[in-house]
Amino acid sequence: MKLMGHHRPSWQELEKGIRLGSIVALGQGITLVESLREEDREFAQQLLNALIPFTGNATRIGITGVPGVGKSTFIETFGKHLTAQGKKIAVLAIDPSSGKTKGSILGDKTRMEELAKDPLAFIRPTAAGAALGGVAYRTREAMLLCEAAGFDVVLIETVGVGQSETSMRNLVDYFLLLMLAGAGDELQGIKKGIIEMADGLVITKADGENQKRATQAQADFQYALHLFPSPESGVKTDVLTCSAITNQGIAEVWQTIEQFVETTRQNGFFEFNRTEQDIGWFEELFEQRWRQQLFKQSGVAELKQNLEIQIKAKKISPTEAVNLLFAAMSKS
Amino acid sequence: MKLMGHHRPSWQELEKGIRLGSIVALGQGITLVESLREEDREFAQQLLNALIPFTGNATRIGITGVPGVGKSTFIETFGKHLTAQGKKIAVLAIDPSSGKTKGSILGDKTRMEELAKDPLAFIRPTAAGAALGGVAYRTREAMLLCEAAGFDVVLIETVGVGQSETSMRNLVDYFLLLMLAGAGDELQGIKKGIIEMADGLVITKADGENQKRATQAQADFQYALHLFPSPESGVKTDVLTCSAITNQGIAEVWQTIEQFVETTRQNGFFEFNRTEQDIGWFEELFEQRWRQQLFKQSGVAELKQNLEIQIKAKKISPTEAVNLLFAAMSKS
Repeated sequence: MKLMGHHRPSWQELEKGIRLGSIVALGQGITLVESLREEDREFAQQLLNALIPFTGNATRIGITGVPGVGKSTFIETFGKHLTAQGKKIAVLAIDPSSGKTKGSILGDKTRMEELAKDPLAFIRPTAAGAALGGVAYRTREAMLLCEAAGFDVVLIETVGVGQSETSMRNLVDYFLLLMLAGAGDELQGIKKGIIEMADGLVITKADGENQKRATQAQADFQYALHLFPSPESGVKTDVLTCSAITNQGIAEVWQTIEQFVETTRQNGFFEFNRTEQDIGWFEELFEQRWRQQLFKQSGVAELKQNLEIQIKAKKISPTEAVNLLFAAMSKS
Repeated sequence: MKLMGHHRPSWQELEKGIRLGSIVALGQGITLVESLREEDREFAQQLLNALIPFTGNATRIGITGVPGVGKSTFIETFGKHLTAQGKKIAVLAIDPSSGKTKGSILGDKTRMEELAKDPLAFIRPTAAGAALGGVAYRTREAMLLCEAAGFDVVLIETVGVGQSETSMRNLVDYFLLLMLAGAGDELQGIKKGIIEMADGLVITKADGENQKRATQAQADFQYALHLFPSPESGVKTDVLTCSAITNQGIAEVWQTIEQFVETTRQNGFFEFNRTEQDIGWFEELFEQRWRQQLFKQSGVAELKQNLEIQIKAKKISPTEAVNLLFAAMSKS
């Protein structure tokens, strides 16, 4: 089996390679599922279909937080803690800034130097391109390939300031929000609703002079969260502190996640959540495919955009706009 | 103009009546927009188109809270406070239990006895039926008719335990969550995410022995909310207490809402939010119409349902299911 060099492997070769745990095959497989070329999509689909039975065994963890919270430092330390226990971990980064500017995640990646050298770790940013559901689409498929390649933990990383964390929420078993101590200006970057979406909050940089503030923030959030409705998972939102410098709290984060998985497996939420995610994914794909077909019709996308401008200008009502759009569509 | 009796008014007659502020015409107009009959839909559309230029002038307030929080008592007291100032207020109730069981809202309605007798007030529960976007669809149109009839304030009421409050959020300028003092079991009924969605929290039943607990709850929520990201409106979430027995705090609720409207009109959020709601409404209608057309095709709805069952049983992947669905659809 020639996976390197100029030979383009078939999907059957990739399937074998990935199931054997080959990092090279995994990398090529992810490149295939990320490809926008029509013929690649078909092969990618066949590859995914063949691998589906071997997916689902990893603990899927989403990690988010504003720039500067120390995501890559946390992931490096957390990742090394896991590989030290013999666990294979994959880190996938959703880069919402892709295609526009060089995102901070790609920059961060080079900073996870030690983890990148670890033979038990695999680090890969999700490629740019918003087609077909954008980043979440690619990341989901990349995650499935990692699972088929035998990874025990998949970490999915994104910046907690845009839309991407909602997409990520629908991919993972455990959603971790990294926060800085001090509930003032640091919060500005966090999107409304994200705190309530999290299964766990971790106050980072809890070392040196910052230790006290971190412990205070922990107490504040524990108190605040108890005033809010209980999570659907049946597990109250964990609030922890950690330091990537002293390693304090890193083991506790993993213990907390393991405990969450155990509890939710027992109370049924774990399976329920994954099934809901699958159904949600089906709905989303269905929607996307239909929209794609619809907007292929000449003029539909332009008309819709034009109608939105008219709604904004208060020239027509939303109901009238829909009537006009459908009238135009049924003609063509 | 004959609006009473067996004569069915034309939409032109209804338009005139509603613009004159006739409660009878308004009631008949709402019945028309609620009708599921195809020919009624067309007249309803003409009526709405004619009235659109006269809408948008009311303050749109959404009120929610779990059963037992005292919604109807609050609305009665609050409504009377407004009518005492000469304001015309309309109360529309979204009843999520409609069609299944007799909802508590319909029961509550009869309890707003004094307000119902007030010539400046109009109370109407939204009719059952989930067709065409369900309750939000009807309520939105009913709200527009109330505005055209010259109402100054439209209160939209729902039970804060289901999906309906998200729909309501997209209809109103100010979203008020009623809560009971004591953050324990009372929270169980509230859906996750609703507290963060609210522009204002009001702790009800702040009287007698409960006064102290209500003040404590107010302080707790004020503290908790300052730890969360700031609302998009630019106005921090208000936390108030009130009593429908002593009337304490009722005037403050209205002052707070007026202040919110003034501030958001100045900072541009008020208009921004309404425009976003219109665009969102356009998207939603577009979606609904398309789904309706799609599922008219024989077998599509059944196939989709069947595929969802297979996904739940882990027999096929979401991606495969979409492929099968589209293959079947392109054949028919």
